[in-house]
Amino acid sequence: MDDIWRPAAEGEAVIRVTKSGICNTDIEITHGYAGFEGTIGHEFVGVVEESGRPELVGKRVVGEINSGCGRCALCLAGDPRHCPGRTVLGIKGRDGAHAEYLRLPDANLVEVPDEVSDEQAVFAEPLAAAYGITEQVEILPETSVAVIGDGKLGILCALSLGLRSNKVTLIGRHASKLKIAERQGIETLLSGEAEKMPSAFDVVVEASGSESGFAAALDIVRPRGKIVLKSTFQGKPVWEAWRVVVDEITIVGSRCGRFEPAVRLLAEGKIDVIPMISTDLPLSRGVEAMAEAQAKGAMKVLLTP
Amino acid sequence: MDDIWRPAAEGEAVIRVTKSGICNTDIEITHGYAGFEGTIGHEFVGVVEESGRPELVGKRVVGEINSGCGRCALCLAGDPRHCPGRTVLGIKGRDGAHAEYLRLPDANLVEVPDEVSDEQAVFAEPLAAAYGITEQVEILPETSVAVIGDGKLGILCALSLGLRSNKVTLIGRHASKLKIAERQGIETLLSGEAEKMPSAFDVVVEASGSESGFAAALDIVRPRGKIVLKSTFQGKPVWEAWRVVVDEITIVGSRCGRFEPAVRLLAEGKIDVIPMISTDLPLSRGVEAMAEAQAKGAMKVLLTP
Repeated sequence: MDDIWRPAAEGEAVIRVTKSGICNTDIEITHGYAGFEGTIGHEFVGVVEESGRPELVGKRVVGEINSGCGRCALCLAGDPRHCPGRTVLGIKGRDGAHAEYLRLPDANLVEVPDEVSDEQAVFAEPLAAAYGITEQVEILPETSVAVIGDGKLGILCALSLGLRSNKVTLIGRHASKLKIAERQGIETLLSGEAEKMPSAFDVVVEASGSESGFAAALDIVRPRGKIVLKSTFQGKPVWEAWRVVVDEITIVGSRCGRFEPAVRLLAEGKIDVIPMISTDLPLSRGVEAMAEAQAKGAMKVLLTP
Repeated sequence: MDDIWRPAAEGEAVIRVTKSGICNTDIEITHGYAGFEGTIGHEFVGVVEESGRPELVGKRVVGEINSGCGRCALCLAGDPRHCPGRTVLGIKGRDGAHAEYLRLPDANLVEVPDEVSDEQAVFAEPLAAAYGITEQVEILPETSVAVIGDGKLGILCALSLGLRSNKVTLIGRHASKLKIAERQGIETLLSGEAEKMPSAFDVVVEASGSESGFAAALDIVRPRGKIVLKSTFQGKPVWEAWRVVVDEITIVGSRCGRFEPAVRLLAEGKIDVIPMISTDLPLSRGVEAMAEAQAKGAMKVLLTP
């Protein structure tokens, strides 16, 4: 890692991390995903130490993890998240959040209001990704939605889509994890019971990160319905493309979302993320934390520098 | 086949076929696709012999190939094309068009105007399928579109999308087939030259029917772009799902389209389908015709009863 204490580059801020969260993508990266070598971690909350936006210094912030080149056609069109030359915090060309300090462009920072604790704010990135679905696919109160996968991302998808639709069902393998969503008003179903289900969901979100998840999604989506692919994972799934054609299914790849709406949901208490925290360990026990995050039944593992 | 000369069932018409066209789906069916046993063929033009719509008797017609049950939720919602209990002419539960007569519901028939010849009208079904893309995906004059596959369907997609967009490129392996589109103002590119291409098409239509077509589509679509899957084929392609997620690609399965706009395009002379005809054989030489349709370089093979 380069010396964090060099003066901040123009337009870049230095942030003292107060808490970071371990994401499944972090684990995928240690298995070779994205070919990244560097400090991992892209879910964080921290305090601004240096910034070209002086009003932010000393403030608590979260931050958009993608940083575009600012010059290519996509950046100029306002979409730095897909800039081919982008850096991504802890994923591509930029050291990440499981550290004492990190750097991000000033423009990426979003202030965290006082009513949002550090434990909540660290969920801003995955919640933004989950809620971002609503900007890609129309979710109305009567839209029937199934979310496949009761991991952290699946639960955040179910909870946040449940703010738009009255008909959200979370499908997973773990009764204990399903409970977290159930307590916040989401219908749930154990995977084994999925046969009972009508094969007619308007929208199915694949958030299981497993190859079988996509096949399961095809089974329960209605003709002309939509499958949202939410999880990045290694491996190349086999799929029955003809079913997608015959039933005229739309598949929507979905990666990230805007931070402001996510922070607002947390500030307004619309979603309770605290039951998703498995444990909070000091950064010095990072190796142990990565193992914890992969243990059976584990949910969000936090790190505190 | 059941006796075609039984009185037409209520709401059904008997049509004397004057010309039918061999589609790649016909060939796929002979290889096991859709598990259909019966008379194949779903591209046709014919003359109405019996019908509950007396004004149609004696008229030349083409016809929507899907027939819903009329009672399920999808049918009641106006979408019989996706009715799970539907029959499909020459594909599912209903004998098809490579025959002297066929039956279709009265409601499925679309009259063919005098200015459209039988040779042109027989293209109504595949042209409807191609042009149907414009009802699923927004195609504006400035939308850059690549069509992969210079077979019959690929050419119809390129020609019909070229009526909406000024930036359509057809990519294929056969200079002679590409020429057909080129002569009607479409830019073309041999597959081998695809490396030269900017990987930034707004929309890529996969109409090659080959497993490699989808991988090629992923290579040339822009981030947040759309891939339209147009061909049904046997086999289960392997795909890099993570690329769909990271680049937030949308994949749209597309099977069929409305006949009225297709017949209108033919009547207005907007698309010249005649150069796509390889040969026209008597129905009695149907076996030979199926072989012809699979020969290298073959385009549309017609059958005349």
